[in-house]
Amino acid sequence: MSRVITVGAAQLGPIEAEHTRADVIERLLVLLRQGAERGCDLVSFPELALTTFFPRWYTDTVDGHDHYFETEMPGTETKVLFDEAKALGVGFNLGFAELTPPDDDGVQHRYNTTILVERDGTEVTRFRKVHIPGHEADEPWRPFQHLERRYFEESPEGFGVHRAFGGLVGLATCNDRRWPETYREMGLQGVELILIGYNTPIHYAPDPGQNALQGFHNQLCMQAGAYQNGTWVVGVAKGGTECGVESLAQSCIIAPSGQIVAQATTCGDELIVAACDLDRCKDFKETLFDFARYRRPELYGRITGQKGVIEP
Amino acid sequence: MSRVITVGAAQLGPIEAEHTRADVIERLLVLLRQGAERGCDLVSFPELALTTFFPRWYTDTVDGHDHYFETEMPGTETKVLFDEAKALGVGFNLGFAELTPPDDDGVQHRYNTTILVERDGTEVTRFRKVHIPGHEADEPWRPFQHLERRYFEESPEGFGVHRAFGGLVGLATCNDRRWPETYREMGLQGVELILIGYNTPIHYAPDPGQNALQGFHNQLCMQAGAYQNGTWVVGVAKGGTECGVESLAQSCIIAPSGQIVAQATTCGDELIVAACDLDRCKDFKETLFDFARYRRPELYGRITGQKGVIEP
Repeated sequence: MSRVITVGAAQLGPIEAEHTRADVIERLLVLLRQGAERGCDLVSFPELALTTFFPRWYTDTVDGHDHYFETEMPGTETKVLFDEAKALGVGFNLGFAELTPPDDDGVQHRYNTTILVERDGTEVTRFRKVHIPGHEADEPWRPFQHLERRYFEESPEGFGVHRAFGGLVGLATCNDRRWPETYREMGLQGVELILIGYNTPIHYAPDPGQNALQGFHNQLCMQAGAYQNGTWVVGVAKGGTECGVESLAQSCIIAPSGQIVAQATTCGDELIVAACDLDRCKDFKETLFDFARYRRPELYGRITGQKGVIEP
Repeated sequence: MSRVITVGAAQLGPIEAEHTRADVIERLLVLLRQGAERGCDLVSFPELALTTFFPRWYTDTVDGHDHYFETEMPGTETKVLFDEAKALGVGFNLGFAELTPPDDDGVQHRYNTTILVERDGTEVTRFRKVHIPGHEADEPWRPFQHLERRYFEESPEGFGVHRAFGGLVGLATCNDRRWPETYREMGLQGVELILIGYNTPIHYAPDPGQNALQGFHNQLCMQAGAYQNGTWVVGVAKGGTECGVESLAQSCIIAPSGQIVAQATTCGDELIVAACDLDRCKDFKETLFDFARYRRPELYGRITGQKGVIEP
């Protein structure tokens, strides 16, 4: 039986501050329908795909951006996307800011979340970003803020892998893609397709020498993660200049060989498509990266035993 | 105080079966002296740099290749290299097959070992290869064997990092470079320079579709390991066609940014040199890859908790 999933990476251009959710959802529906026309089983949208990238602005209180958060998914405005997915028979994943219902202590939590939806419109899982980059406090010296650590809690759950679309599918978000632990945690669950949305400003204030390397680093980490775990990786950007901040586009679909098989060439809304044969994963999982044969976990103790650097 | 180490990657061309150790050491001395002339503090030689890559041949008993192993380092023939290093004030690392003295149970062990030697000719450490690739039994269907798992035991010790050459230096060998755990174990010890020797046949019998990707995969893994840990990486090949088997050359020196700053362009003996400023590591270790701030080891449990894949 064929295990080819046709995947569309639905890159988004900028979402300006004045754009409404309804504006954005209209764009998502256009891309979802393009995906259906091009035979996609799954259309992958970026991180925080419903709103502008609001952590670039400081607010005095942590709830100052709560109007950018979703309290339910699907909600009143997003339900049309789920309905259309079901009607078209095309699944999707979508990044959004999640404000949870109050927990037992009455506390609401804020996560940078992605939902994975099957072709019948039902939720497979939701993933909360594990590696939250940036900073907690206002840093006025920066040309713009990157306050993800103020507005989002770190995922308490980690990286799951799920049976969906006929294969083993995992999720990660933006900065998670720079960390080899992300791919390995999922590789150890046999992942065959990892979906990653991102918003990556070109300007990296703590070390602007890295600005010109953003495209290189983006590819490097995702290609290495794909190869070293024998998995397809789909990286989907919100790119272009949004509210004056230029962000990396270059969405791409990467084979288990590490090769890029499709790449966006614009900085705007753009769908790229690839037929991803999940059986290609075996070429790597059963040879060089036969973990059960070759790994040495008894010698990796520092990776889980310590958080920061301990010099000899 | 400057923390620039000038490193020479001393690629070797083929060592044929009929070449003696004396032949090879003469070549190593030429490269070491070239390194001194070009201002090197350290010259890095490849894996199994004293002999042909003998695991390509099966022998009925495991001791059938013992004449390719060293029982002491320095030994009678290799001492000249240590003496010349001291005279020139140039350190080196050198890969060799190590046959240990009998342990308490009278057992001798065989390791794929690299020794690191300071500019005064003294040993800093020796590293034994952790990830042994290939196979244990004769597999006559292959055009040549890759019997490392027959002739070498896996390192019982893992990846150490050592104060040497004014910085924090670690070692890895060949297949170790494909595993992100290799770099991370050393990254968590603050490593600033990782020295990796390799012998990589172009033909990968279990999946020849990977043959054309050998150069890409070689760079991909080392560049990702460098960037994701903010460390210099030096990859040094024994390349060219040795005993009829073509091996990857493309030795390279990689900056903490992941950029290749020097690369060999021949398949023979060739020295490439780069001035490696160890302080550049901070650009990454203290920003994006500030492990103490951003890592989530409590969510990486599978990496040390299991060896092989466990599907959901």
